Amino acid sequence: MLTNHITWQPLQPRERRWRTMGQRPAIAWLTGLSAAGKSTIANAVDTALVAAGRSSMVLDGDNLRHGLSRDLGFTATERAENIRRAAEAARLMAEAGVVVIVSLISPFRAEREAARVIAGDIPFFEVFIDTPLSVCEARDPKGLYYQARSGKVSNFTGISSPYEAPITPDLTLSTNESTVEASSQPLFELLWHRTMHAHRIEV
Amino acid sequence: MLTNHITWQPLQPRERRWRTMGQRPAIAWLTGLSAAGKSTIANAVDTALVAAGRSSMVLDGDNLRHGLSRDLGFTATERAENIRRAAEAARLMAEAGVVVIVSLISPFRAEREAARVIAGDIPFFEVFIDTPLSVCEARDPKGLYYQARSGKVSNFTGISSPYEAPITPDLTLSTNESTVEASSQPLFELLWHRTMHAHRIEV
Repeated sequence: MLTNHITWQPLQPRERRWRTMGQRPAIAWLTGLSAAGKSTIANAVDTALVAAGRSSMVLDGDNLRHGLSRDLGFTATERAENIRRAAEAARLMAEAGVVVIVSLISPFRAEREAARVIAGDIPFFEVFIDTPLSVCEARDPKGLYYQARSGKVSNFTGISSPYEAPITPDLTLSTNESTVEASSQPLFELLWHRTMHAHRIEV
Repeated sequence: MLTNHITWQPLQPRERRWRTMGQRPAIAWLTGLSAAGKSTIANAVDTALVAAGRSSMVLDGDNLRHGLSRDLGFTATERAENIRRAAEAARLMAEAGVVVIVSLISPFRAEREAARVIAGDIPFFEVFIDTPLSVCEARDPKGLYYQARSGKVSNFTGISSPYEAPITPDLTLSTNESTVEASSQPLFELLWHRTMHAHRIEV
C-alpha cells in the first residue's frame, strides 16, 4: 500500500463521547526542568480530578520511554519524536473525552508549539513548572544533576543543553516555597472549570 | 540522559479511574483483510457502546497513519512498528478506563501476539473479521485490490503479502451475509458485559 491510499475513516461525533462522559477534554502540558516537580504536580492534579469525578490520565515522559517511545534514544531528533508521540497520544485520549496531563521536560519552544498544533481544537494549556535550576539541582532526587556536572551525562537540560522557558504560558506554577497541594491547586481549578460539560451542569 | 536513568513514575491506582468512570476497560483488536468490514464494525460497536453510556474509542489503522504513525512507511518493519504503537496507545487509553476498539489489518500472528503482550493484564480480545478474500475483492471500495492485482500496489495483504488468520480468536464475526447490526452485535455484547463495573451495578 502507498501512503496516498490511506483515507481517513470518520468516527462518530466526539461530542457524543463527551456528553456520555459528562465532561469536555483538555490537554495540560507541563514543562520544566528535571526535578522541577512536574510529575508530582501532574499526579496531585490527576488524583484530585478523579476524586472529584473527572476522567483524567497522566502521560509521563519517563513512563512513555518504557512503552510508546521505548525505541527512541536521546538525540535531538529522537527527543522531538518523543514529544510528538506524547502529543499524538494525548490528542487521541482527548478525542475520547479524557483530561490529559502531560509531564515532559520538553525544553524547546518549537516542540511545545508543535504539540499545541497536534492538539488542534482540543483546549491546550502550556503549564510552566517554574522551579529555579538551583532548587532542582539541590533536590537532584536521581543524582542526574551531579552526573551532568561531572560530565557523566551529556545533553542534560539546564546544564549542557538549553531550557527555553515559556514566554506566554497559560499557567505558571512555582513549587519551591509551597506545598504540593498549594502548588497544584491553580491547575486543578483551571482544568476543573474548563472541562465542565453543560450536560452535567443541567442535571 | 541515558536510558538507564529513566525511572517509572507511579500514578494513582487505576481502579480509582475505573470506578469514577463506572466501567472497566478492554481492548478489542479487530483483524482482517482490507475491506473486510473492520472499520464498519468498529464504528457500529463504538456508537452502540457510547449510546449505552460507556466510554469507548476507535483506534483506526488508517487514521493512525495520519497521526501517531505518520512517519512510518509500509516495509515489514514499519508495519510492525505501526501495530506496536497502536497497541501502546490502546494500553494507555485502557489504563485511563476507556474501552478501545482497534481496527487494523495486522496480518501476522506474531504481531497480534505482541499487541496482546503490550496490553498486559488489560482484557484483550482478538476479533477476527472473517470475510473471504473474494468478497473483499468484490467490494474493493478504494480500488486497492484492483491495483494490487495489476501490480501497481505491492505488499498488499491477501494478494502479494500473506494474511495469517487467527487460530484461536476470542470472537469471529462474518460480514458477508448479514447486516452491520447483526454482524457487530456479538462484539457489542462481549464488550458490554466484560466492561461492566461492580460499582455501577450496585447503584
